[in-house]
Amino acid sequence: MASTAFQDQFRDHPSFGFLDWVLRGIGQVVFQNNPLSGAVILAGIFYNSWIYGTVCLLGTIISTATALFFKADKGMIKDGLFGFNGALIAIALVAYTSPNFTTGAPPNLYLGLYIVLCAAFTAVIVPAFGAILGPHKVPGLTMPFVLATWFFLGALFSFTTIDVSNALKPTSPSDFTGPRPDYTGITWFHGITMGIAEIFFQDNWVTGIVILIGIAINTRIGAAMALMGSTLAVVTAMFYGAHDEAIRDGLFGYNAALTAMALGGMFLVLNWQSFIYTVIGVLVTARVWASLGVFLEPSGMPVLTSAFVFVTWLMLLAMNGLPGLIPVAPADATTPEDNLRRYRERQRK
Amino acid sequence: MASTAFQDQFRDHPSFGFLDWVLRGIGQVVFQNNPLSGAVILAGIFYNSWIYGTVCLLGTIISTATALFFKADKGMIKDGLFGFNGALIAIALVAYTSPNFTTGAPPNLYLGLYIVLCAAFTAVIVPAFGAILGPHKVPGLTMPFVLATWFFLGALFSFTTIDVSNALKPTSPSDFTGPRPDYTGITWFHGITMGIAEIFFQDNWVTGIVILIGIAINTRIGAAMALMGSTLAVVTAMFYGAHDEAIRDGLFGYNAALTAMALGGMFLVLNWQSFIYTVIGVLVTARVWASLGVFLEPSGMPVLTSAFVFVTWLMLLAMNGLPGLIPVAPADATTPEDNLRRYRERQRK
Amino acid sequence: MASTAFQDQFRDHPSFGFLDWVLRGIGQVVFQNNPLSGAVILAGIFYNSWIYGTVCLLGTIISTATALFFKADKGMIKDGLFGFNGALIAIALVAYTSPNFTTGAPPNLYLGLYIVLCAAFTAVIVPAFGAILGPHKVPGLTMPFVLATWFFLGALFSFTTIDVSNALKPTSPSDFTGPRPDYTGITWFHGITMGIAEIFFQDNWVTGIVILIGIAINTRIGAAMALMGSTLAVVTAMFYGAHDEAIRDGLFGYNAALTAMALGGMFLVLNWQSFIYTVIGVLVTARVWASLGVFLEPSGMPVLTSAFVFVTWLMLLAMNGLPGLIPVAPADATTPEDNLRRYRERQRK
Repeated sequence: MASTAFQDQFRDHPSFGFLDWVLRGIGQVVFQNNPLSGAVILAGIFYNSWIYGTVCLLGTIISTATALFFKADKGMIKDGLFGFNGALIAIALVAYTSPNFTTGAPPNLYLGLYIVLCAAFTAVIVPAFGAILGPHKVPGLTMPFVLATWFFLGALFSFTTIDVSNALKPTSPSDFTGPRPDYTGITWFHGITMGIAEIFFQDNWVTGIVILIGIAINTRIGAAMALMGSTLAVVTAMFYGAHDEAIRDGLFGYNAALTAMALGGMFLVLNWQSFIYTVIGVLVTARVWASLGVFLEPSGMPVLTSAFVFVTWLMLLAMNGLPGLIPVAPADATTPEDNLRRYRERQRK
Repeated sequence: MASTAFQDQFRDHPSFGFLDWVLRGIGQVVFQNNPLSGAVILAGIFYNSWIYGTVCLLGTIISTATALFFKADKGMIKDGLFGFNGALIAIALVAYTSPNFTTGAPPNLYLGLYIVLCAAFTAVIVPAFGAILGPHKVPGLTMPFVLATWFFLGALFSFTTIDVSNALKPTSPSDFTGPRPDYTGITWFHGITMGIAEIFFQDNWVTGIVILIGIAINTRIGAAMALMGSTLAVVTAMFYGAHDEAIRDGLFGYNAALTAMALGGMFLVLNWQSFIYTVIGVLVTARVWASLGVFLEPSGMPVLTSAFVFVTWLMLLAMNGLPGLIPVAPADATTPEDNLRRYRERQRK
Repeated sequence: MASTAFQDQFRDHPSFGFLDWVLRGIGQVVFQNNPLSGAVILAGIFYNSWIYGTVCLLGTIISTATALFFKADKGMIKDGLFGFNGALIAIALVAYTSPNFTTGAPPNLYLGLYIVLCAAFTAVIVPAFGAILGPHKVPGLTMPFVLATWFFLGALFSFTTIDVSNALKPTSPSDFTGPRPDYTGITWFHGITMGIAEIFFQDNWVTGIVILIGIAINTRIGAAMALMGSTLAVVTAMFYGAHDEAIRDGLFGYNAALTAMALGGMFLVLNWQSFIYTVIGVLVTARVWASLGVFLEPSGMPVLTSAFVFVTWLMLLAMNGLPGLIPVAPADATTPEDNLRRYRERQRK
């Protein structure tokens, strides 16, 4: 397979290896163990904001280097599995401390050091989830990022040197009543594309499309699933009459898109039953995003990708008791296409 | 044993089997793997409100059918173990969206579809708890219901098509001070009977007594435990001077009654030590109900049966380190009487 | 080793044995399986307040006696491992219900009985954490205390017989902005010493120093780690411009000091890599304390030692995936010095 050879030619390269692992780390946020995917996604982030692009790269570098320092599993490091939480937490900490969420502001020295500690911490706790969930063949997903952000973001309320007054605002959960909002074509288009972009905290529909292209380079089924997840989330949010702005900002979709990719072919072989299972997972995830927001609202903390993690964990843990579903162990999960091909080969023998 | 033969004659029946499993599902909310118990309890719910009776039945049907679709363990399905969470979540979603909590209101189309998704989701995640807790011989209890309700109820704040303004109201935890309230005979009587009824969200003391009869059909020890749990919760709440209304509504008792049944003979062989253990569990559970309410109050979310689940999980997980207690594996747990008989037979050999 | 012989001479004594186990229980709050350490620490608490000293002793006695009643592992009971959670919860319940936090007030009958139930419950659930975390060679730490306090403290809002109006006050998380506070030598000195004292809820720097001496009797490395943890927490809190008062009250330090002791030689053999790992853990813990406070503020619940537990659990669970670190199983963990000596002996063979 020439294309595999091409994308993997720098994985063990003495000088470019590290850059390869970092780009894979960015790709792994959306399950793509492919440096080209990572590079395209990084370009999409830079298109929206050079600040987010830069901190995303630095966060991934810090996480990956930390894993190397503590001699973590070399194969996992090379696959970018220690980098993706660092990519997300670096962007998150800048986003929630910037006066302008959309483009971000360059971090000051205090925040810079804070990000270094956070990104290192996310790498350090990756094996903790492996220890707990590994025996069940369930991956840790973005939980290190979610936990570390919750662990660090709230602390900023206590410090004068980093300003969070524009971003984090505790409120009481408010009930959204009244007539159903008037949705437009923009609700549809922005809702779906921003649902992909928001995985990386990017308020930019172009970035969403570029990320989708980055995924499609490695797996077309994966890209189709991401699109389906975001679309279904938007459709049901409109059906139930959600806030127009929340839909347009992609907030219903970003967790749903991740759940769709995880369940739809990545950690379960794609068949008719796992497709129904994925649809259930997507519909549930979009609701869980909204519900966790209610739990967190009084403290001002964001939901992040926790809805995706909780729903996907539960549904993957359940797979062994539902024989209609065929699990793929995290270490073997490459792309939906590959998983399916290997499963069919096993069947033939 | 003629009575066992009678209650089990439809379990494998080609046409009536499904109804049998559904009725067992309703019985399993209070640990009764017996269609007669389920039928009596369902009648008790219908006595209070035909709306709750209907949605309870439908919720159990949806959960059980979902488990069949994903080819879950047939023995567990037949024992009603995939149905009971669906029974509860269907009632819960109607109760918290109705202007009148006591009788409920028929769900609109939006809520109806919402309930279908929820009930299906509770069935799907049942094996997840089996995967985590099974090796410790600890059952999942009503956690799928609790989690799914928290995952879905909060989301309703975001939608215009389902009205929650009457039910869910975030408030700040308030300190209840002043002189001890004047309790009456009604505090006692309603407190204890509603403590049983509230397991199924029913504000009706007759329903509480009917549920108790439904349990007693299958196990007298179990019924005695439920009564003891609710009574002890009322006694201690009055001793400490709790709100008269909260006691009369059965709020202190419903979690305590479930803990009493679970620890008192069901998952631990009943002996002198496990009886003391159960009393500790009951007293703790009544307190935990009140405390979790304080954690959840700012978000407006209800405690549900989470106090029972957390305390029972912890105390069952601990049993292997406390040799005075004799565990009964969930798959072997039938009734306190049976568990005791089998244990004595094993001892004799 | 004469000194070991001396400190262990009452462990199996028919009449003084129980007192020995109780004193070890007090020592185990800071990982010291040594009755002398426990006695010195208890003296330090009595120096601050005879009320706290008395309830600390009673709490440990109740927990230890409960473990004996349920026939828990005798070796663990003798090592004080069933006592330390009872020591902490008894002090906590008095502290949060007293008009004056610093010295406490004698509990009334209602609170007294409440403490008995709580302390018994913490002992009962100790093996639950052993069941879950034992296979990963991770100890339960003070989680039984943290959970039980959260489970019981909130319930007090519902009762007229125990007054919490002076202590527990739900508020909205508030952002601390403005110029960096003017720190003085007192910020340094009180911050560091109270950081040790606050582990036992004592607002008294002398008590902090006495506790440090109690630790040093058993292990100098452990005492050095506790001091380093508290100091690093103070240094970084000042660097980031935290509230002067929060620093002086030792609030940043008490979780950090515990993390430092746990990771710095106790459950990981002390080497260059585990030292860096400990420093990361300490810095993270100090942030997590502040962040969890934001999550809990709307409910009025305190953070307790949960920051230490969460961070230490995650970092110990991760150790098996980071081969630069050498784990010490909880059952083998004695003192950093001993762990190191035994490791070197194993290496030599």
